[in-house]
Amino acid sequence: MFDPKTLRYDANGLIPAIAQEAATGEVLMMAWMNAASIEKTLASGRVTYWSRSRQEFWEKGATSGNQQVLVEMRLDCDRDCLLLQVEQSGPACHTGRRNCFYTAVRQGDEVEIAKPMT
Amino acid sequence: MFDPKTLRYDANGLIPAIAQEAATGEVLMMAWMNAASIEKTLASGRVTYWSRSRQEFWEKGATSGNQQVLVEMRLDCDRDCLLLQVEQSGPACHTGRRNCFYTAVRQGDEVEIAKPMT
Repeated sequence: MFDPKTLRYDANGLIPAIAQEAATGEVLMMAWMNAASIEKTLASGRVTYWSRSRQEFWEKGATSGNQQVLVEMRLDCDRDCLLLQVEQSGPACHTGRRNCFYTAVRQGDEVEIAKPMT
Repeated sequence: MFDPKTLRYDANGLIPAIAQEAATGEVLMMAWMNAASIEKTLASGRVTYWSRSRQEFWEKGATSGNQQVLVEMRLDCDRDCLLLQVEQSGPACHTGRRNCFYTAVRQGDEVEIAKPMT
């Protein structure tokens, strides 16, 4: 039986969660969860983070419509990081891009490698 | 010009870094970097984390031989998370598995979904 309380959280009770598009392997974003948001995510099947800035649950896409449906939750060997296999609707990034990692370091410079979805 | 000092670090001066196999999209592991380890990684082309437990640089594979060669470093929109495209030799996980996320939550139970490489 999986118990979210058995994970290793930081001093603020948070654990980093990586969202990866299940079908393609694209890494979409990284955000934070607490034990309660993990329980919500597993119960609802919709990925629910903990917003550090707003100090509240953040059900991804609840306002934007760009939901993340949970396909599978995985833990790492140290139980201090989560990998979420998801199905992302539309952009995962608040900038409108498909994923948040659209800035690459190439030859010492920052290069924008993806544009917002239209 | 990319300057590691412009990233957003936590209270300990650290930033999470996700390592992804460049050729396949497999998420291998997540560990932490500081500004100096980012500089070392970019200069050497070999991924160098900061070990929180040992409080020292941790050049991945320096002792095990299971190196991570950097293909490309990417930043997220908030500049507080890195995605490293790498070429991993052998297992990335200290358990001998290819990646650290070998435990899945399925029907409420923890299931081992990968075995150590032989």
